[in-house]
Amino acid sequence: MTGDGNGDVDGDGAQTFRTGIGTSTPDTILLLGQDLAGDLIGKVSFGELAFWLIAKRRPTPEQLVMFEAVLVSLADHGFTPTALAARLTYLSAPESLQGAVAAGLLGGGSRFLGVTEDAARFLMEALAAHPDRPDDEAGWDELAVELVAEAKAAGRFVPGLGHPVHKVEDPRTPVLFDLARRNGTFGDHLELFAAIGRAHPAVLGRTLPLNGAGVCGAVLADLDLPLAVLRGCALLARCAGLLGHLAEEQTDPIGMDVYLGVDRNVDYRPPPE
Amino acid sequence: MTGDGNGDVDGDGAQTFRTGIGTSTPDTILLLGQDLAGDLIGKVSFGELAFWLIAKRRPTPEQLVMFEAVLVSLADHGFTPTALAARLTYLSAPESLQGAVAAGLLGGGSRFLGVTEDAARFLMEALAAHPDRPDDEAGWDELAVELVAEAKAAGRFVPGLGHPVHKVEDPRTPVLFDLARRNGTFGDHLELFAAIGRAHPAVLGRTLPLNGAGVCGAVLADLDLPLAVLRGCALLARCAGLLGHLAEEQTDPIGMDVYLGVDRNVDYRPPPE
Amino acid sequence: MTGDGNGDVDGDGAQTFRTGIGTSTPDTILLLGQDLAGDLIGKVSFGELAFWLIAKRRPTPEQLVMFEAVLVSLADHGFTPTALAARLTYLSAPESLQGAVAAGLLGGGSRFLGVTEDAARFLMEALAAHPDRPDDEAGWDELAVELVAEAKAAGRFVPGLGHPVHKVEDPRTPVLFDLARRNGTFGDHLELFAAIGRAHPAVLGRTLPLNGAGVCGAVLADLDLPLAVLRGCALLARCAGLLGHLAEEQTDPIGMDVYLGVDRNVDYRPPPE
Amino acid sequence: MTGDGNGDVDGDGAQTFRTGIGTSTPDTILLLGQDLAGDLIGKVSFGELAFWLIAKRRPTPEQLVMFEAVLVSLADHGFTPTALAARLTYLSAPESLQGAVAAGLLGGGSRFLGVTEDAARFLMEALAAHPDRPDDEAGWDELAVELVAEAKAAGRFVPGLGHPVHKVEDPRTPVLFDLARRNGTFGDHLELFAAIGRAHPAVLGRTLPLNGAGVCGAVLADLDLPLAVLRGCALLARCAGLLGHLAEEQTDPIGMDVYLGVDRNVDYRPPPE
Repeated sequence: MTGDGNGDVDGDGAQTFRTGIGTSTPDTILLLGQDLAGDLIGKVSFGELAFWLIAKRRPTPEQLVMFEAVLVSLADHGFTPTALAARLTYLSAPESLQGAVAAGLLGGGSRFLGVTEDAARFLMEALAAHPDRPDDEAGWDELAVELVAEAKAAGRFVPGLGHPVHKVEDPRTPVLFDLARRNGTFGDHLELFAAIGRAHPAVLGRTLPLNGAGVCGAVLADLDLPLAVLRGCALLARCAGLLGHLAEEQTDPIGMDVYLGVDRNVDYRPPPE
Repeated sequence: MTGDGNGDVDGDGAQTFRTGIGTSTPDTILLLGQDLAGDLIGKVSFGELAFWLIAKRRPTPEQLVMFEAVLVSLADHGFTPTALAARLTYLSAPESLQGAVAAGLLGGGSRFLGVTEDAARFLMEALAAHPDRPDDEAGWDELAVELVAEAKAAGRFVPGLGHPVHKVEDPRTPVLFDLARRNGTFGDHLELFAAIGRAHPAVLGRTLPLNGAGVCGAVLADLDLPLAVLRGCALLARCAGLLGHLAEEQTDPIGMDVYLGVDRNVDYRPPPE
Repeated sequence: MTGDGNGDVDGDGAQTFRTGIGTSTPDTILLLGQDLAGDLIGKVSFGELAFWLIAKRRPTPEQLVMFEAVLVSLADHGFTPTALAARLTYLSAPESLQGAVAAGLLGGGSRFLGVTEDAARFLMEALAAHPDRPDDEAGWDELAVELVAEAKAAGRFVPGLGHPVHKVEDPRTPVLFDLARRNGTFGDHLELFAAIGRAHPAVLGRTLPLNGAGVCGAVLADLDLPLAVLRGCALLARCAGLLGHLAEEQTDPIGMDVYLGVDRNVDYRPPPE
Repeated sequence: MTGDGNGDVDGDGAQTFRTGIGTSTPDTILLLGQDLAGDLIGKVSFGELAFWLIAKRRPTPEQLVMFEAVLVSLADHGFTPTALAARLTYLSAPESLQGAVAAGLLGGGSRFLGVTEDAARFLMEALAAHPDRPDDEAGWDELAVELVAEAKAAGRFVPGLGHPVHKVEDPRTPVLFDLARRNGTFGDHLELFAAIGRAHPAVLGRTLPLNGAGVCGAVLADLDLPLAVLRGCALLARCAGLLGHLAEEQTDPIGMDVYLGVDRNVDYRPPPE
């Protein structure tokens, strides 16, 4: 067996598969090394368990406040493309709720749900490239100016800067900053993102808001969650929003009207022969 | 416009789409009629928001305890087929975490994740058919005997009775029953399910455990959540478990070994010409 | 190892996994027992290979004509809910074409893509319950009257009877009937479906068209394809249609306008406190 | 309405949605401007329709041979991770065939199904950067040496060069090259890819085979199909293979054994407290 994984071949030739998540015996269910029934059910919130599963460590109470705040921040944004995709899929296949949820999550990609991950990546890479951290606001602003100028010169956007609806301020942003400060989880990623919020107008010549989804990326990065699962946090949050949309579609549907509104207003222009 | 939905045509011909979930203005994000930034972030847990989204009502503190307990109970069961499907999908397309999560959720169907919904449906239908509720344990047992005998005569299983691993007792079951009693949410669905647990041996001639996922269905039914979204609660819970598996696959993968273990041990028997 | 599958444990304890689909050696790729490079590439059409994969037998030339005709019939229907779900998913996550295709296929369920399977099931069950087959049109009509009357009495629709757009005749229907006759694949399922088309007005009091997707189900059943994969044939056909929509969305998008058309016309009615 | 799409607002304010794919009237179904019933069913193969849908132009007979050859080449590779994900999903949710197919397609990403697209992109970009094309084999080899050396210097692989199983020659490769020559579709992409096959050993110091999936990318590029849908061609091909696997899983399952083989051989190592 020469896979690149952790499967081990012991003396008698049996392949084993390593995990630290969960396993069961006839009497016990273990999750993260804990006794699910005795130690977790009724004792940890779902948000706490989700953090623990993703990070393989239990959050502190303050970290948990921030993690739940991020999940609440990202759960739903009304009639997004992902909510519509889920509702249209439910319209076509109402017997498979999982298919409708999956269809909704599949839109969790670069354009509408990726800001959280993109902002975190930008901040992580910037900090990794600048191991000597500023020790005052002026120093952070200086670094921010440098980064925004670099992005501008390269013709790239700074992820998390700007919002299509909240042109002046994303209402989530100050609340999340304040919450992180009060919970002692305000770290370098939020410092740098805040500095970008202060410093970018001087470089870009206009003032953009810090996107709440971007702030969520900075919050999660300051909780030391690995970059590769940050999109997953956004997906978990969105899963709850999609369930809300699908529950509403069951009682108060819009899917058929969305479909008919398009299908009946087709402008048919076939390709040339 | 003659869809079966709620789209309204007002005087000037514009189609509108009704929702009570969320909407935004430049200054505000509304979710369930609340100010997301001012009233929800940092003030409700993710579990509370998820209940609210699904049920369109805020849970009481006791209901919330039970809802979070159910989500924790259902979050993960180790190397399930759904966890393996997610890991194998991640192996093939690591650039699309949403695809791997979606693949895992797509297994959330009748055989491995459907018990919660099936048990709730069984209990709801039984209670709907018996509007006069028993007022003591003997009465509940009598009803349970009747239902189990009916199922047996029809050659059907009682959903939520029995478990492939936990042959004697599912460790989640007594914890959830106890928690529901202490939180005052122990209603008719749990009463009936408990009675089925006591009464079925006399009918079936053997003693089966009450499956924890089935108990979760009874708990959610006693919280007055609609049947049609109960599978969704299991999907939300499982979403967290899948993220745990995918985070682990990123650092300690088994997908390649699972694949090679099958592919290298193929017993190829092509169809006849 | 006590799974319900075909894995065999040979003398030295190694689990094997049986398949007749495909396997590879360093020199050869075998597919369905054929040498992919030498016997299949450039020698069979994709439709022929698809039939062979699904049925584990090579179609006759006449069966292949019918199978390709069904795939062509079902490939696309314009701005269906599934096409819209795929386009909206692509809008959100353009980096993952597979996610957009998958989202579209997930709508391949009971309401918009299930007619093919449902009609075939209805016809198969009816024929299984009537092993003595009629030997003339009058006999088929008699059976059809009986079946339609049964369905009416039970308050059920006959699957494949009626179409939301083609109120008088589905243009695919006569073409498929004629093609099956000319190719010698017109069997009992098409006989019975045709009889339902002739006989139902006397029972229902109105004349409905035979739905082309339903005819496709009868055609596939007459090709002896197993019921359990008929939905799969519709999904394969639709996969091509979805790729057409996604290719068009790349150059001539409508997703953003669909989304904005809903989101900007929200009628927000939050739930009561 | 200010989306970035093609929706037009005409004088009376109605949004329209442009498409050249399909639309219906009560009497007719139009697909690509053709009368589906009269011009397509029974007259074009599914492969031909798929090309037409993707490219918005009808293939020549020679182009069609090559397109079908590519679809046949890519349809299946035995127990791939995507086939296993589809089978495991079917095991969990057998009532939703579309979910199992979707789960399989979601693995159609960078690592196991992306070679076709990656090779085509590499060749397209190389040709775009070298508008003056060589006019003999020596000239192509020179360009190939330059490109392979560039990739080596940058620490990148040349997509489509090398195969995990077919270490010496992918059996599909010579067949596809030969078929393209005989059908007159052997263009610059295949020329360059063939040159890479000849020229790379001098640069890399070892001889690698040209991967058949990579050749498929060059073939499709020579058919002038847009890069952005090439992954879609691989997905369509794979859809047929997945249906073969799922049909086999229905009669001769391995999913349960795969699952149990992992679950019963767990090496549980929970995270530290």
